[in-house]
Amino acid sequence: MTETNSSSTPATEAALLSSRDARGVHTLTLNTPRSFNVLSEAMLAALQTAVDAVAADPGARLVVIAANGKAFCAGHDLKQMRATPELGYYQRLFAQCSRLMLALRKLEVPVIARVQGLATAAGCQLVAQCDLAVASDQASFGVNGIDVGLFCATPGVALSRNILPKQAMEMLLTGDFISAEEARSRGLVNRVVPADALDAELQGLVDRILAKPREALAMGKALFYRQLETGMESAYQLAGQGMACNMTHDVAQEGVQAFIEKRSPSWRT
Amino acid sequence: MTETNSSSTPATEAALLSSRDARGVHTLTLNTPRSFNVLSEAMLAALQTAVDAVAADPGARLVVIAANGKAFCAGHDLKQMRATPELGYYQRLFAQCSRLMLALRKLEVPVIARVQGLATAAGCQLVAQCDLAVASDQASFGVNGIDVGLFCATPGVALSRNILPKQAMEMLLTGDFISAEEARSRGLVNRVVPADALDAELQGLVDRILAKPREALAMGKALFYRQLETGMESAYQLAGQGMACNMTHDVAQEGVQAFIEKRSPSWRT
Amino acid sequence: MTETNSSSTPATEAALLSSRDARGVHTLTLNTPRSFNVLSEAMLAALQTAVDAVAADPGARLVVIAANGKAFCAGHDLKQMRATPELGYYQRLFAQCSRLMLALRKLEVPVIARVQGLATAAGCQLVAQCDLAVASDQASFGVNGIDVGLFCATPGVALSRNILPKQAMEMLLTGDFISAEEARSRGLVNRVVPADALDAELQGLVDRILAKPREALAMGKALFYRQLETGMESAYQLAGQGMACNMTHDVAQEGVQAFIEKRSPSWRT
Repeated sequence: MTETNSSSTPATEAALLSSRDARGVHTLTLNTPRSFNVLSEAMLAALQTAVDAVAADPGARLVVIAANGKAFCAGHDLKQMRATPELGYYQRLFAQCSRLMLALRKLEVPVIARVQGLATAAGCQLVAQCDLAVASDQASFGVNGIDVGLFCATPGVALSRNILPKQAMEMLLTGDFISAEEARSRGLVNRVVPADALDAELQGLVDRILAKPREALAMGKALFYRQLETGMESAYQLAGQGMACNMTHDVAQEGVQAFIEKRSPSWRT
Repeated sequence: MTETNSSSTPATEAALLSSRDARGVHTLTLNTPRSFNVLSEAMLAALQTAVDAVAADPGARLVVIAANGKAFCAGHDLKQMRATPELGYYQRLFAQCSRLMLALRKLEVPVIARVQGLATAAGCQLVAQCDLAVASDQASFGVNGIDVGLFCATPGVALSRNILPKQAMEMLLTGDFISAEEARSRGLVNRVVPADALDAELQGLVDRILAKPREALAMGKALFYRQLETGMESAYQLAGQGMACNMTHDVAQEGVQAFIEKRSPSWRT
Repeated sequence: MTETNSSSTPATEAALLSSRDARGVHTLTLNTPRSFNVLSEAMLAALQTAVDAVAADPGARLVVIAANGKAFCAGHDLKQMRATPELGYYQRLFAQCSRLMLALRKLEVPVIARVQGLATAAGCQLVAQCDLAVASDQASFGVNGIDVGLFCATPGVALSRNILPKQAMEMLLTGDFISAEEARSRGLVNRVVPADALDAELQGLVDRILAKPREALAMGKALFYRQLETGMESAYQLAGQGMACNMTHDVAQEGVQAFIEKRSPSWRT
């Protein structure tokens, strides 16, 4: 387990804790709990570096995005934003944030949000942008930039690709928060459990996914999002090509053979 | 409070009651309860005029679409449609109706449906087309043109952008109605309350939205629907530009400053 | 009642039982229960032939896709796929399957899945691809190709056009199954009833749809899927043209006249 972003002086804690276990699970933990883990420029940069490191790790299997403290993530750093009231600065900031969000989607490995508390604005966007999300029943979710006069347009991009439009619109216009259970029923998170069961639920999901072959998951994730943005005929063409290719590979040949022989596949997943 | 469409002779009631309060809330009330508030040519024209008036009112903040009587709206006026069995007439009628629906979406201010009763066919479309909807638990919803041999294709456009496809398809193919509670769980309406709590629920929602700055809501609403129709990368580009621009404006600068100072923003919303 | 695909020797049972009743309801019953009704090349070909026959039958009103045995359909025939480990073969196989799926969508008449048991991988896709689905509470649904190293990309095309993305992604990444009730609440099936009530529920739905005029349903089904893949303005143009055309036809003129006269329409549906 390595902490790539920890400072050289142990007295200073890193804003982002980044670890990788022997199985290839990268855990990125937002670690500025006193500022509610806001996505400051430094935090965004640290996340981008960590995500780029995952992309460069051929043994990576999965990413968990977690957070320390009571809040998961309170969105952008408003103090920092207020300090440079310039259009060019804001354009670069949102471009930096969007680049990170798209990088999560482009990662070959699945990304799971572990949401233990409040997820606000770009923090809610981060949850929505992950492939899957597991939440504590103490978590809550909102896109409440409008409360400070800043409509959560970029969080809305991810949110409106998770939940239905009128539900997203209500959250964006009112800034109201929804409970974890409501988030689950609407499609924003996959599973909700009591806080003390959060890690067990997450681990169960991680174990399920690690048992599958990496290359099939990688092909599948990329295809899934690509086909979602096309019409059905194109979607079938893309997906059919991808599956045919997947089927010729060793993992699928072995997986199918094992199925026929009623045994477990012998994969290096 | 003005009634822009009321007749000069008080003995005649207007088909559409249009009022505006001091806060900029325009309430458009369908007022032909004996004919179930059908969208006759006259009603469509009155609605278009009223919506155009909202668009021209720089102090407008919000639109409520309401109705008098037991039904919210029973869709198109079938008697009138039967009286002119000509393709050109029907083309103009549906173009008129679609123009109205798109005008609701293009309005800078949020539009909320206040649904106290039955919403049928184009009446259900009107609910679906609004940004938000609050319903009495006595309301019900259907797209039952198919019962008279006329598939609700245009209502289907709005409905299928509110709820999931198989659920929309069942309503369109069978003409079956769903309850308000079912409509809420599917995403067609945001909130359902007993009839006698409908106005309080609506007012609570209106008050929440009026507390936000107009220009941020206007930017946000336009971006929301625009980004929904593009791929994710374009969506982030559009939304990022919009948010950066929003952030440079006085309302966001003051909102963020107030947040930092732990006080309420001093806005003219 | 005819069985178009039954063998000439009664001793051999057909893989697909195809029947048509006097009302024009075609029932296609997957009939290889011992192999869980897998979509072998032969089964895909038999289904394509049967669907083409429906398309060529001017009196066809509706298609029911059903299955014999404990499983509805277990997806592709893995033994057969393993026997020819060639890219070209797999490309042809998925193209054959996708062609069938698109043919269901292109049929003028509604297609209802009658799901009495397990629907797996391409079997789950078949359910998702139908316009409507009725399920026994004993049925379950999964896209678990990933368990043999083959990501269910083509099933994902249909599934992700039925249910919300994170829910689809979880099923695709984990291979986990969901219950019939969960499938209903997510939008994959329309109705769930106890096994012994499945046929009555199906018949109720069939009867509702048969009472509507064929041509209006045909126009509506085609428009529904076409408009879903465009922006809202184009969608309204398409749908408005279609409805105007629908309205000029005898069935709608008679349906509306009957409505005005408070009587039932006299249609040959």
